[in-house]
Amino acid sequence: MPLIKKPVNGMKDILPREMEIRDYLIALIKETYGQFGFQSIETPCVESIENLTSKQGGDNEKLIFRILKRGEKLRLEDAKSDADLVDYGLRYDLTVPLVRYFSNHENELQMPFKALQMGNVWRADRPQKGRYRQFMQCDIDIIGEPSNLAEIELILATTTTLGRIGFKGFQIRINERRLLKAMASYSGFPEDRWDEVFITLDKMDKIGLDGVRRELAENGFAEESVEKYTALFEGLKETQDPLAFLEEALKEVITDDTITSLREIMQSVEEAKSADFKVVFDPTIVRGMSYYTGTIFEIAMPELGISCGGGGRYDKMVGRFIGRDVPACGFSIGFERIILILMENGFEIPGAPKKTAYLVEKNLPGDKLTAVIRKAQQARADGSQVLLVRMNKNKKFQKQQLTEQGYTAFEEFYHDTEI
Amino acid sequence: MPLIKKPVNGMKDILPREMEIRDYLIALIKETYGQFGFQSIETPCVESIENLTSKQGGDNEKLIFRILKRGEKLRLEDAKSDADLVDYGLRYDLTVPLVRYFSNHENELQMPFKALQMGNVWRADRPQKGRYRQFMQCDIDIIGEPSNLAEIELILATTTTLGRIGFKGFQIRINERRLLKAMASYSGFPEDRWDEVFITLDKMDKIGLDGVRRELAENGFAEESVEKYTALFEGLKETQDPLAFLEEALKEVITDDTITSLREIMQSVEEAKSADFKVVFDPTIVRGMSYYTGTIFEIAMPELGISCGGGGRYDKMVGRFIGRDVPACGFSIGFERIILILMENGFEIPGAPKKTAYLVEKNLPGDKLTAVIRKAQQARADGSQVLLVRMNKNKKFQKQQLTEQGYTAFEEFYHDTEI
Repeated sequence: MPLIKKPVNGMKDILPREMEIRDYLIALIKETYGQFGFQSIETPCVESIENLTSKQGGDNEKLIFRILKRGEKLRLEDAKSDADLVDYGLRYDLTVPLVRYFSNHENELQMPFKALQMGNVWRADRPQKGRYRQFMQCDIDIIGEPSNLAEIELILATTTTLGRIGFKGFQIRINERRLLKAMASYSGFPEDRWDEVFITLDKMDKIGLDGVRRELAENGFAEESVEKYTALFEGLKETQDPLAFLEEALKEVITDDTITSLREIMQSVEEAKSADFKVVFDPTIVRGMSYYTGTIFEIAMPELGISCGGGGRYDKMVGRFIGRDVPACGFSIGFERIILILMENGFEIPGAPKKTAYLVEKNLPGDKLTAVIRKAQQARADGSQVLLVRMNKNKKFQKQQLTEQGYTAFEEFYHDTEI
Repeated sequence: MPLIKKPVNGMKDILPREMEIRDYLIALIKETYGQFGFQSIETPCVESIENLTSKQGGDNEKLIFRILKRGEKLRLEDAKSDADLVDYGLRYDLTVPLVRYFSNHENELQMPFKALQMGNVWRADRPQKGRYRQFMQCDIDIIGEPSNLAEIELILATTTTLGRIGFKGFQIRINERRLLKAMASYSGFPEDRWDEVFITLDKMDKIGLDGVRRELAENGFAEESVEKYTALFEGLKETQDPLAFLEEALKEVITDDTITSLREIMQSVEEAKSADFKVVFDPTIVRGMSYYTGTIFEIAMPELGISCGGGGRYDKMVGRFIGRDVPACGFSIGFERIILILMENGFEIPGAPKKTAYLVEKNLPGDKLTAVIRKAQQARADGSQVLLVRMNKNKKFQKQQLTEQGYTAFEEFYHDTEI
């Protein structure tokens, strides 16, 4: 039977040109985060299906690639539903595995635990351009740091990394789940429907404030609440100091340190930043995952009109594994999106070694060939990249192809070449 | 329901100390192989189940983690066997995916195609010490090079890498499938039972020549064949030049270039090598996989009594995908085994940055904290690693723990510290 040449639906083979950039980026990210004291860790790509379906993953739990039981445990004849046939699944994110890892190794880890994970995740999503069913995530997390030093370090580490990759003029947009809740509470929305309000708010950049007002009304919220809520956003548009405005407006419903903490984060990051970006308070940032409990943030690339990552504080999630709350905060950069941007912009890897090709005449006598190989070995020991290749009949075409692959220098060796 | 803390059976969480070594090794391997013109590539971890069960993988095909179909394609009620429920699987090696990749992208690739793959593979093997169900493989392959330049470059690239990691005094043991076959043919074993002969021969290092003789006899081979065969190995023990001995003994049954090519490889590698090792002809090397067609080799670490990788030529495998033979040769290093050796020997990463910890008094005022962070940012920009951490009540214990994590310098910041 002929074998199947294509990768499976929605997953991709990575060609050498892209892989070079990926390898460069992975090394740069690991080095930079390492300088901030983040420790690289890894969990298996395969997780217990129970952990993957524990309601931490929202809609992603519907997209799991599930793995069949093996050996005697696989009993097709007794299976009432397909769930009976499955014990494992491929992870759909790195957060659930991180929390499991922390709960498993808490006593062996430096506290606060600063973790860096770069790893593939899988989601059986409908494939579309630039969106694959296997993709790399790149997360940093700090577990065990209750203060906003966690947020400050996460934002500085991430932005320093983005700066070293070459990004400029981007924004870190920041908000607070507690502030979102205070605004909803102040407006009189019923607490059990706040998440619905936030889903509508999240569309602000697409449908505008009028659109938000209309959708909230359509969803049956009280007119008075909708008006109070949208009035807050109108007030925010006009004020010079949105945090002071909200501090005053929400003083009856907000916890003491919410706004102070946000201000500290923004100020510290601005003063200590080492890349060209701005921290911007954005009261419309929601972040989809329900596990966030405090600060939330996103990377915005205004020129490209896209977000390139995000994160936030999730102080209640570790507790679900270990039965005792441990504060946690994380930041994820959109690795695949960054790769796409770099590829589309013809990214050149800085400091890449010069590529030399040695073209060797076919049937060069053994001792002569050995001499060429020794010369190549010497150049490699000196840090060069040397490709040793048999000379084709059409030498010009061969060199042209090698030039396309980045080779800039050529040496030719014949049976009468002095080496 | 409480979540499961442990990783799934037979797979492991990688702790920061091991991960540091893994990251260092991956970077070193990619850099070194890159200097030889190998191009890093990647295929999805998930492959079509048809490709994984096409008999290229030998016994590994029994160990596949199989993935359940999704959506409408999953029809439990119509399934006659569990095979009807499965469309994908996790790859058990990197060779089948490489050949698929090559057949899919042949026209986009530089020829000969020199590929480097570092990636996880999965095998539902019985877990045992040092052997996991998810582990990293590290393969280089040259596709499209018929001459022994492929073998020479593969061996030089691999040994240069091992040398840079720090290995010394190891051996590359080399043999030829065509030589193995010639010896079996010369001895008069029936061709359809040669693989059985080789399985016995493969045990030579454990059971000795007498053991091999006994097992062959027990398996019902003709006494005359067994005697001729073992006489060859006795002759090999006594000769100074085993290749010349075999050239003479097998001259009726061996193809012309088999021994010449082996000699050339051994000589070129010896003369151009850049690490401290020896190339040794070993007529008892068999290599399990049936797809090998020519040269085969293994890395032997005599001091440790183990093999650390191997490979060989497989000129017929690509043809099964694309219907036309393309020569190919590969070398795989035992990444996980090397990690284990380095960990057990307390490996220190050369050139690792100095680790400094800044201990910051709790409740340091915001502007003071910002000043400390700026100082840390400056040190990081200069290439240092700086961990910023809140000071614990038991500062001595905290420093002791940080020392265990490799921190060698400490600075303390209080509300009255001048920064």
